[in-house]
Amino acid sequence: MKLSVIGHNNVGRAVVKLANSYGHDVVAFSDSESTVLCDEGIDPENLIEKEKNGEILGDGDPNLALSTDYDVLIESTTTDIDRAKLAFSHTKQALERDRHVVLSNKSPVALNYQEVRNIEKESKGSVRFSSTIGGALPAITTLKDIGRSHIKSITGALDGTANFILSRMAAEGLGYDHVLAEAQDLGIANSDPTFRSEGTDSAMKALILANLLWESEDHTLSDIDLCGIDSLTGSQLDLAKEDGKTVRLITELAKGDIKVGPRLVREHSSLAPSGSLISIEFETVHAGPISLASHGTGGIETATAIFSDIKSL
Amino acid sequence: MKLSVIGHNNVGRAVVKLANSYGHDVVAFSDSESTVLCDEGIDPENLIEKEKNGEILGDGDPNLALSTDYDVLIESTTTDIDRAKLAFSHTKQALERDRHVVLSNKSPVALNYQEVRNIEKESKGSVRFSSTIGGALPAITTLKDIGRSHIKSITGALDGTANFILSRMAAEGLGYDHVLAEAQDLGIANSDPTFRSEGTDSAMKALILANLLWESEDHTLSDIDLCGIDSLTGSQLDLAKEDGKTVRLITELAKGDIKVGPRLVREHSSLAPSGSLISIEFETVHAGPISLASHGTGGIETATAIFSDIKSL
Repeated sequence: MKLSVIGHNNVGRAVVKLANSYGHDVVAFSDSESTVLCDEGIDPENLIEKEKNGEILGDGDPNLALSTDYDVLIESTTTDIDRAKLAFSHTKQALERDRHVVLSNKSPVALNYQEVRNIEKESKGSVRFSSTIGGALPAITTLKDIGRSHIKSITGALDGTANFILSRMAAEGLGYDHVLAEAQDLGIANSDPTFRSEGTDSAMKALILANLLWESEDHTLSDIDLCGIDSLTGSQLDLAKEDGKTVRLITELAKGDIKVGPRLVREHSSLAPSGSLISIEFETVHAGPISLASHGTGGIETATAIFSDIKSL
Repeated sequence: MKLSVIGHNNVGRAVVKLANSYGHDVVAFSDSESTVLCDEGIDPENLIEKEKNGEILGDGDPNLALSTDYDVLIESTTTDIDRAKLAFSHTKQALERDRHVVLSNKSPVALNYQEVRNIEKESKGSVRFSSTIGGALPAITTLKDIGRSHIKSITGALDGTANFILSRMAAEGLGYDHVLAEAQDLGIANSDPTFRSEGTDSAMKALILANLLWESEDHTLSDIDLCGIDSLTGSQLDLAKEDGKTVRLITELAKGDIKVGPRLVREHSSLAPSGSLISIEFETVHAGPISLASHGTGGIETATAIFSDIKSL
């Protein structure tokens, strides 16, 4: 397939790097200021060379990524609530041109789900967004596979950065700010830390899951009972540990309610993933819990879910 | 869909019980001696009543389940290597009649994989077998989703009965025979215990995974480096525990080799599921490990995977 990638970040770069090994060509790659076009498929080596030399990505207008000839638009710009309209507009334009859209940006399917589905209905293109729940976690495939009427509730530790911070705080008895700085140094917390520590990243993921689980209803960020982890102290985690427990930023969907906040979970349980792993548990009507875990952050991990999406088109 | 179910056991009964809530009708249900037919869909309540009264399942010839009018054959007879020809013959006959086949019996896709695929190619029907890796575990969907060329290795604790026995042995310091008897009392070890303790159940699952992962190659039971858990002692597990480890019956597929045997695994890790849970871990080329866990035994759990298969037809 011919891919057009919007979003010059870890995810976009990983898609360009791996496209060939998944049998695809990236024919356009854009950031907010420019586009590089190549009908034969962009050579990732050239791109790395350009970046090393501090050159800009390309000399084309950024809108060329939308108007050029491609099969699938990859909307991999970083999720940003203030710029949600832009990601939605990219999605809309591609669908209106009868192209497929694969999103790693969460906002179109978290905040404009019904609109996107309505535009999709009129289009020959489809929308996929497996990577939005977190990296390589096969959460959406599994949700569809079980079938939403057979799921009682969903619980997840879906924010890899929060999991990293909380497992470091528990292991070392360190405070939130100290560990956050460490995570930023390691490149794990690479986006706006407030977005994560206040639980907004998990809340956006929760909205996407809610849209899939309770398709008929409309949920917005303000419906979510939301609390972040930025006020947690090392001593609170020490106290939990004495009782065989630890704390994770947990997303819960049950009986029409969405909650995101720090919760006590059993140490080493599937809801207490360590490092930057993330996990999700579907409580099914008939078959008990089904749980999944994988790396939830990282451009490469996210790109692999994007390629699974492309395969399913 | 109209379902014909062969196999009067926990799985077959659960399919009859749940069919309606998944939008299907069971029009035929057979054991080795008789068949009950009902065009309107068999009423599970009637069936329970008959079983209570010790009556036989129906008055029809068992072969009626194959020759009646249905959309999907559910081959849910218990996996038995000595009776593998029979399960294969059921699969073949249904495909030759252009019907779909959903298997919970492992042998057709463990021992006759290429033959089944060749017959399927000539048929308008398809074969699905998601439940063969264990209950509700979405292992096969995830394997296909990742794509086999992007998987380096697969490791799993795939035998729920073995996991139950080993976690009880470790927790209570009891010997294998004692815990096996307990598992049988609880109905967890309900099939031939030798089949499980010698690792044959895991080996059959490994063959199915190998057939999916290395599609071009033919693997047989004799290719597997196989060792059971029946000679493990409570003191070996105590020794492991001192080192923060425990033992599970582990299935490994890597670099063309298949191994099944007791292995030391880290306590509470994803490869040390407790109780009768089972787990699998895909080591991917680009995205690190992706792990899944769910209940691996039980008729209801297996039936839900059968219904997921039917949905995918």
